[in-house]
Amino acid sequence: MSKHFTQSDFDGFAKSFRVNFFNSLHGFRSVCLLGTQDQAANTNLSIVSSVVHVGSHPPLFAVIFRPDSVERHSLANIMDTGMYTLNHIHPDIVQAAHQTSARYPREVSEFEATGLLPEYKGSIVAPYVSQSRVQMGLRLTERISIASNHTVLIIGKVEDVYFPSEILHEDGFLMLESAGTVTSSGLDAYHSTHRITRLSYAKPYQELTVLP
Amino acid sequence: MSKHFTQSDFDGFAKSFRVNFFNSLHGFRSVCLLGTQDQAANTNLSIVSSVVHVGSHPPLFAVIFRPDSVERHSLANIMDTGMYTLNHIHPDIVQAAHQTSARYPREVSEFEATGLLPEYKGSIVAPYVSQSRVQMGLRLTERISIASNHTVLIIGKVEDVYFPSEILHEDGFLMLESAGTVTSSGLDAYHSTHRITRLSYAKPYQELTVLP
Repeated sequence: MSKHFTQSDFDGFAKSFRVNFFNSLHGFRSVCLLGTQDQAANTNLSIVSSVVHVGSHPPLFAVIFRPDSVERHSLANIMDTGMYTLNHIHPDIVQAAHQTSARYPREVSEFEATGLLPEYKGSIVAPYVSQSRVQMGLRLTERISIASNHTVLIIGKVEDVYFPSEILHEDGFLMLESAGTVTSSGLDAYHSTHRITRLSYAKPYQELTVLP
Repeated sequence: MSKHFTQSDFDGFAKSFRVNFFNSLHGFRSVCLLGTQDQAANTNLSIVSSVVHVGSHPPLFAVIFRPDSVERHSLANIMDTGMYTLNHIHPDIVQAAHQTSARYPREVSEFEATGLLPEYKGSIVAPYVSQSRVQMGLRLTERISIASNHTVLIIGKVEDVYFPSEILHEDGFLMLESAGTVTSSGLDAYHSTHRITRLSYAKPYQELTVLP
């Protein structure tokens, strides 16, 4: 049976129902751990599921921040240092990753609180998550305010990428399933994936073929 | 064995390698069919994997458009009418959904070319995909230019949502696996999912519990 919700239904939603509903509505999400630190090297780690690809040349990704959310410490650190890391999550660290969303006091690092380990390398002065298998270091390029609801979009350029060499296909595609990368839905569900197919570049009036 | 790529490596990437690499780097993606039409009711359908949740109250989602891409017809239609639909993809329509990314001439509707069927209902005057099981209708609220690479961010407010009633959990969470919703990685891979866990709201120094 099909259900239809419209504005008048939305108005009647309890807050937690509304948040669960709209966070799960657009499908499965890219979910990463965002590592930052302030000028005094106090580290911060938060789980983000609003990372989106903006471009490849230069390589740019966007993350959305809600100013009143627990990620505000991360946003403050990014504005302070201009650098941050994004780290993939695999099943063994799902619980620790989710725990970083707790509202710890400012002086507590989520690294210490959750057992995830900071790792420093390359040109980006921000902590990577040592247990993570796919890691990228980014430098802030742009901060954009979204007028519709006062959220903030942070655009960053990738400077370093670390990953297991065996997940790289010869055409540049990363076989994330081999790294155990999980996806999330809503605010609190985590999923493994199984490839259905990989399809050739689509052209008008031409049959698609399956890629290796 | 771990691999490290940095700026000097990026510069040496062939174009298709670079596009595959950076499109798969941030993990699994929300992937939807975007339905639009112009003032003369000429329809357009394109596959988008850059949908991101911006807020729940009001319910806002963002989509990123590259001005030089095949989705430019969709963007023109959204600016023309202010309305569009986002429709989930399940395994039976993955091939047709992928085929919408072919560069058809302006006068060809991807609906006709792929066998996906337009459906009209509710307050949003734009075509839904009839075969899709989770559908939402949105109204444009904001267009933002990203200076870093001249892409465009479209923010829209959800006005209508249609979905199978059995996927709605009592707390508002949508069990997307029951609807067969797929996720994508890179530009061309499609994946089904399997839930690992759903975890309680995280609080400092408190054990997480598994939600139903």
